Amino acid sequence: MRVLGVDPGLTRCGLGVVDGRGGRTVACVAVDVVRSSADTPLAERLLGVADAVEEWIRVHRPDVVAIERVFSQNNVRTVMGTAQASGVVALTAARAGLPVAFHTPSEVKAAVTGAGRADKQQVTAMITRVLGLAEAPRPADAADALALAVCHCWRAPMLERMAQAQARSAELARRHKARLAAAAKGR
Amino acid sequence: MRVLGVDPGLTRCGLGVVDGRGGRTVACVAVDVVRSSADTPLAERLLGVADAVEEWIRVHRPDVVAIERVFSQNNVRTVMGTAQASGVVALTAARAGLPVAFHTPSEVKAAVTGAGRADKQQVTAMITRVLGLAEAPRPADAADALALAVCHCWRAPMLERMAQAQARSAELARRHKARLAAAAKGR
Repeated sequence: MRVLGVDPGLTRCGLGVVDGRGGRTVACVAVDVVRSSADTPLAERLLGVADAVEEWIRVHRPDVVAIERVFSQNNVRTVMGTAQASGVVALTAARAGLPVAFHTPSEVKAAVTGAGRADKQQVTAMITRVLGLAEAPRPADAADALALAVCHCWRAPMLERMAQAQARSAELARRHKARLAAAAKGR
Repeated sequence: MRVLGVDPGLTRCGLGVVDGRGGRTVACVAVDVVRSSADTPLAERLLGVADAVEEWIRVHRPDVVAIERVFSQNNVRTVMGTAQASGVVALTAARAGLPVAFHTPSEVKAAVTGAGRADKQQVTAMITRVLGLAEAPRPADAADALALAVCHCWRAPMLERMAQAQARSAELARRHKARLAAAAKGR
């Protein structure tokens, strides 16, 4: 499974492509950061992000796009821009017919380092080791994009099993309801 | 000037097209609300918003798209979805080669009712009167989209003058700097 991980942002948007080769084996295919200046009009900055994601999908042909789920924790203005960028990334993936998965920062940290509260340095160190990179990806947004892609490779089988279990339980509930309705009619 | 006003959102996204015919004269061309269910995956909801805006641009050929500037005031989860939708709307406008303008809710209220803290009912009542509509647009998101478009019609000449003044002052600063540099060289 090939995953395009995106750490969305306007000033810096991290892009990382990882191949999941079964079990815990993962390999780095590409990593980069798209930048835009705060002087640039918002619509143009979003266009830059969308164009880059479109290009990466065309070149690297991922099976799925994993995006960091944005929370309104820090600077409100930054968070709004990050959310807008994440919307544009999700749209671009959907337009390309790719499934989109969201992971929270703590899911990513927990998956990669084993601790949901790991700091940026720990994530970078761990992702460098896990992917067997000669040097640490810089800036942090690049490392975060790779971490997100690795997180998806490792969480996807579990998420898949959960979705199947949920579908089964919904189906059982549906049948149970149908039986109750039939019994009520028969009375 | 024809303006497409968008009150961005996932559950309800208001779309309103208004013609500004000089001075305070404005006419309603079209108004509607695009809806999507919270059960629908986020990427699909964003796709629905993007498709609708694309279609409205194709059909109504606006000169500019005016979008409500999102703030992180209310429910965090809702605000994130709203920001993602607004990003997708701005991207769609930029892809169509249209300029994008953002107005804050209080700028819209002040422009339409004269008071930045007007409530939803006052905005709806005023927009109904200003556009000479037989009945009030429903739901509030539809009225808000029209208010946004009217706000843009009325603020655009002022914003244009401000942008020109800013460009002039930047040009004067540039010339002043160039003169200083030339003087320093001549010394």
